[in-house]
Amino acid sequence: MGEFELIRRYFVAAACAAAGEGIALGIGDDCALLQLPAGEQLAVSTDTLVAGVHFPLDCDPFLLGQRALAVSVSDLAAMGATPVGFTLALTLPAADADWLQGLARGLDAMARDCAIALIGGDTTRGPLSMTVTVFGRVPAGQALTRAGARPGDLLCVGGSLGDGAGALPLVLGERDDHSHEARALLAHYWSPPPQLGLGIALRGKASAALDISDGLLADCGHIAAASAVALMVERERLPLSAGLRALYPREPALNHALAGGDDYRLAFTLPPQHLAALQAAWPEVAVIGRVEAGQGVHLLDADGGDIRPPARGFQHFGSQGD
Amino acid sequence: MGEFELIRRYFVAAACAAAGEGIALGIGDDCALLQLPAGEQLAVSTDTLVAGVHFPLDCDPFLLGQRALAVSVSDLAAMGATPVGFTLALTLPAADADWLQGLARGLDAMARDCAIALIGGDTTRGPLSMTVTVFGRVPAGQALTRAGARPGDLLCVGGSLGDGAGALPLVLGERDDHSHEARALLAHYWSPPPQLGLGIALRGKASAALDISDGLLADCGHIAAASAVALMVERERLPLSAGLRALYPREPALNHALAGGDDYRLAFTLPPQHLAALQAAWPEVAVIGRVEAGQGVHLLDADGGDIRPPARGFQHFGSQGD
Repeated sequence: MGEFELIRRYFVAAACAAAGEGIALGIGDDCALLQLPAGEQLAVSTDTLVAGVHFPLDCDPFLLGQRALAVSVSDLAAMGATPVGFTLALTLPAADADWLQGLARGLDAMARDCAIALIGGDTTRGPLSMTVTVFGRVPAGQALTRAGARPGDLLCVGGSLGDGAGALPLVLGERDDHSHEARALLAHYWSPPPQLGLGIALRGKASAALDISDGLLADCGHIAAASAVALMVERERLPLSAGLRALYPREPALNHALAGGDDYRLAFTLPPQHLAALQAAWPEVAVIGRVEAGQGVHLLDADGGDIRPPARGFQHFGSQGD
Repeated sequence: MGEFELIRRYFVAAACAAAGEGIALGIGDDCALLQLPAGEQLAVSTDTLVAGVHFPLDCDPFLLGQRALAVSVSDLAAMGATPVGFTLALTLPAADADWLQGLARGLDAMARDCAIALIGGDTTRGPLSMTVTVFGRVPAGQALTRAGARPGDLLCVGGSLGDGAGALPLVLGERDDHSHEARALLAHYWSPPPQLGLGIALRGKASAALDISDGLLADCGHIAAASAVALMVERERLPLSAGLRALYPREPALNHALAGGDDYRLAFTLPPQHLAALQAAWPEVAVIGRVEAGQGVHLLDADGGDIRPPARGFQHFGSQGD
């Protein structure tokens, strides 16, 4: 048995443990087979992480496995979809048993958290990279797209912003900090919890939604363009975590929240009548602005005046690494 | 607009041209949305091609695009599925406009041939590789798996074998031949037509099926193991193309057919009563052996005696490159 056959066995074990509803045939044939309840649609998204571009070559494989799956499942959350399965295309220069076991355990931990099963994949030799394709189900017509925001809607986010970008100097070893707050930022970076419950709660309520991977302002630009509206972002209302506030002065912390990537919080637009009920169930939801007629994203100060948005610096190892 | 945004525009144009049935939402949101007719299941398969492992770095991008999609769609054919859509995760060291246009045209040509639409993807910077994930639909319970072969069934293939392996010396520039026969082998290597029509015709008839990517004997081993039967392969019945016979003496040609990869023909087991009707519609279908009780794959000579199968040499640039 070759080394790559061993790899397959690792992951098949993980797949069998996780097989679930909606999967008629899992790993091991030419194709997997999924089935959908009547009236549901299948949501599909694919993401690649490349060593040296999206993650450091020497990172912990358990953390890498968690993160690789989390960032893809976050796209299901952003559509309001319920996870079903995922495929993993893994390219490796060589098969190191300890490293692979770490990766498989990290994937498996996140897969259990998200109730998603490995249904297939491919293992090839080459420079280290991973492509994860995720599948979820959502009632027909209820998926959250980027295209429905209307003037008068509130602009909301699903929790604190900037933790991903704030963690980067720690991830890269440029900053050494073992405080509780620093560990909280690192934990968010390596294991950003997909906001699946919130996404499902937004079905039939949010007018537009996405997950913040490229930075709040850049991603709000996608909603503004797809919905043909203007998004007004009030800088003073951005929720910042205790960890981010402990590690950074206010101005850099706000810039991480505005322009940093890797948050994987949902950003969404919401007709105001839905806010109270939503916040009762999801108190971390914060209103950070509003939708107006017009176009583009406008950053406002405490007095409602326009502010020039912060420039986005080059970042290694972010999801925006392309 | 960055160079990678330009790439996305290339492929979005291709996606819009190809959008079709079963696709509720295509490229451009957090997820694509697929819908299935009642009573159908979704078949999913993913394959990675890595530069320098599965294809030469300097190969024609049009041919690479055709081949990358064809080898993945072949997995849909092997399940008896009808193509719906595919995602493309493309990792590139840099964005070269001519190269990308070639790749997009090659993908588009194969996508049109197979009636499959690009529904999403990811573009990242890194060493050149492509992961294609394909989606197809198949009536529930009618997908062709590897697990149903029964003693008494015939072992069949969907056409000539060995052309993929026979083309490799030409692909690698180890052999220079511009004859009609050599061009035919090269054409099969770079654009192996997925046997979609045959796969659909086998629904409800074939007891097991797969596509030959790793070589006939190795892939028959998958059917034998999944079905818990023995497969008897009669060497003298292997169909060899005129091109393969022109370029190779009989013994090496037979070894390519037995142990070479990259054929992407269907191999399947069939209860004998279905053969006449199938061959009337698909005259290229050839019986190459039979299913017996037992296990493993057995290679038989013209007198029915066991032959030691040919060893599989190391091959660059085959699908089995891992």
